[in-house]
Amino acid sequence: MKITAAVLRELNQPLSIEELNLSDPRANEVLVKVDAFGICHSDYHVVTGLAKQELPVVLGHEGAGTVIQIGDGVTDVKVGQNILLNWFPYCKQCPQCLVGNTNHCKTYTEMLGQGKMLDGTTRLTDSNNKPILQLSGLACWSTHVVVPDITCTKMPEGTPPEIAALIGCAVTTGVGAVLNQASVHEGSSVVIYGAGGVGLSIIMGCVLAGAEIIIAVDRSEAKEPIARSIGATHFIKAGKDTVGNVKELTDGLGADYAFDAVGNIEIAEMLLPSLRERGFALLVGVPPTDSKIQLDATDVFRQEKRLTGTIYGSADTGVDFERFAQMYLSGMLPIDKLISKHYKIDEINQACEEMLNGTIARGVVTF
Amino acid sequence: MKITAAVLRELNQPLSIEELNLSDPRANEVLVKVDAFGICHSDYHVVTGLAKQELPVVLGHEGAGTVIQIGDGVTDVKVGQNILLNWFPYCKQCPQCLVGNTNHCKTYTEMLGQGKMLDGTTRLTDSNNKPILQLSGLACWSTHVVVPDITCTKMPEGTPPEIAALIGCAVTTGVGAVLNQASVHEGSSVVIYGAGGVGLSIIMGCVLAGAEIIIAVDRSEAKEPIARSIGATHFIKAGKDTVGNVKELTDGLGADYAFDAVGNIEIAEMLLPSLRERGFALLVGVPPTDSKIQLDATDVFRQEKRLTGTIYGSADTGVDFERFAQMYLSGMLPIDKLISKHYKIDEINQACEEMLNGTIARGVVTF
Repeated sequence: MKITAAVLRELNQPLSIEELNLSDPRANEVLVKVDAFGICHSDYHVVTGLAKQELPVVLGHEGAGTVIQIGDGVTDVKVGQNILLNWFPYCKQCPQCLVGNTNHCKTYTEMLGQGKMLDGTTRLTDSNNKPILQLSGLACWSTHVVVPDITCTKMPEGTPPEIAALIGCAVTTGVGAVLNQASVHEGSSVVIYGAGGVGLSIIMGCVLAGAEIIIAVDRSEAKEPIARSIGATHFIKAGKDTVGNVKELTDGLGADYAFDAVGNIEIAEMLLPSLRERGFALLVGVPPTDSKIQLDATDVFRQEKRLTGTIYGSADTGVDFERFAQMYLSGMLPIDKLISKHYKIDEINQACEEMLNGTIARGVVTF
Repeated sequence: MKITAAVLRELNQPLSIEELNLSDPRANEVLVKVDAFGICHSDYHVVTGLAKQELPVVLGHEGAGTVIQIGDGVTDVKVGQNILLNWFPYCKQCPQCLVGNTNHCKTYTEMLGQGKMLDGTTRLTDSNNKPILQLSGLACWSTHVVVPDITCTKMPEGTPPEIAALIGCAVTTGVGAVLNQASVHEGSSVVIYGAGGVGLSIIMGCVLAGAEIIIAVDRSEAKEPIARSIGATHFIKAGKDTVGNVKELTDGLGADYAFDAVGNIEIAEMLLPSLRERGFALLVGVPPTDSKIQLDATDVFRQEKRLTGTIYGSADTGVDFERFAQMYLSGMLPIDKLISKHYKIDEINQACEEMLNGTIARGVVTF
């Protein structure tokens, strides 16, 4: 079938909105009509070359839609179902899956990581019949996708597609970081560096966990009202003495928890200094490939500060996607407040630009 | 009274065994006849200057003895009692003590850290009536000490003084690191860098916690039989590809836990590479002041490896000293196997030398 998709043909160039050919789903694959997708900074890392993805490729790993056709052997989803697209599907059988660390399953990472289906090909070709890769095996910056059935998760009835899309990446990454990995405790103090989709999701998670002092830090003052509207108790515009400002707000001691929601080494190295004794620092944003972090040994040894990371919110997505959707439906997670602006697919370059200049939280494209 | 003690008068010089004057205990102080003390590497950091302690000073922070006189206001201990000397006493009243982090209490650290009693003086003078400092406010490389009463912990009846002495530093640091901070889980794999008093105590703790693969790493092969005798399942002589060797012994994946029992930055930076996904690294040995550790961001973020430290085994020493002594008495902690050699106080320089060349585990001086 003919579809419309946003193709990246050259690094650091605008995306081209093209008509592509999408072939039918093969065995264990599903054809999905995309209903909504989010604009995530990780997509933009592909544009800049930081993510080292082969080109040309259709971007998009944060999406949701409706199943319109299934391939042979597909049993878990049916035509007509609303589903969320999972960029980190897992096998349920490997040693990591068996001990519950499904976000460390490596069964599908190689092929999907290259932008291919599990048989090593793609379902997309352009008007010259040249193959086009699919980011994360999804490529949901598109009107339609063919994806492996294991990436499709059913959504509870009434979940709006743009909410499901955000649960597919930003929300699970941020809320999962708080609930699954940091286990933020009631009455605690928290600082979050970066108030984009992931950072704001961390704030939502911290509110849910009962944190008392929730400090959002961002370069852009435009984030202050959004951050406060979902529960940040303080906002700091990133500047010269950000760590000093964090300490001022936390009895001079530093916070109990510090999150890097950006994926920036300079921020990663600010996390431990932002903490009090035995505080807990977490890398949530994707750091540059092969980057190093330098820590004070005293912070680690004598102060017993802790550092770890969390990928995809350390989620068991088979459980957490539905859990977070139910939390949205019951009013516990105000995910809708993360969405600053709706776009159409041909406004994708403008959407990227507005994400980059920090004026909006999450932008979503709906159909 | 006249006492005999080991005095450090000049960095990197042998200790001099001298007759000193010890004045009577003042209010809230106790005179203790030292029955045993251990030779810990941290004492030697004073000799080399790494610990930045003012001189002249009597060393010794790992000791036990018998109370022979008490000052005004002392109620917790009585004359005749066997006690252990605690180099990290705490106040039970500050915010850190009140939340159970007694090893972060700062009430006494300044004065005791300078080698002084809590009134800013010492109880020691030499034959020229010049004051001599007391390491950690203890100075137990000596026949007798005057110490603050809050450093004295009663020992269960039947606890040999050399066992109590080791509980006072190496054992609590190592076993506490495993049980209090790492919470090593049953069936896990562990690598311990350094098989001195602390490293061997970590091994004992791992046996107690039910670890299945316990790999001891040391530069000295002399440590292999000692490490195996207390439960190490494997021994690696530190060399070119130590991390590779650790991986070979752990399904090619790395260990669940990695401990630095030395306090060496090169080792600290080997911890995360020694671990599998979600593995836990701990700094247990004292790292050099102002030192930095460099980590791969990917190890932290994508692999979700964890790093923290533990000072004094993250112990609540008011509980743990007695707990570990009872564990020794019931046969759960074979602390006696840590003691390779007994010395007399005038053999102290030989004892230090043998610790440094790695031929023995823990040396103790008894009277």
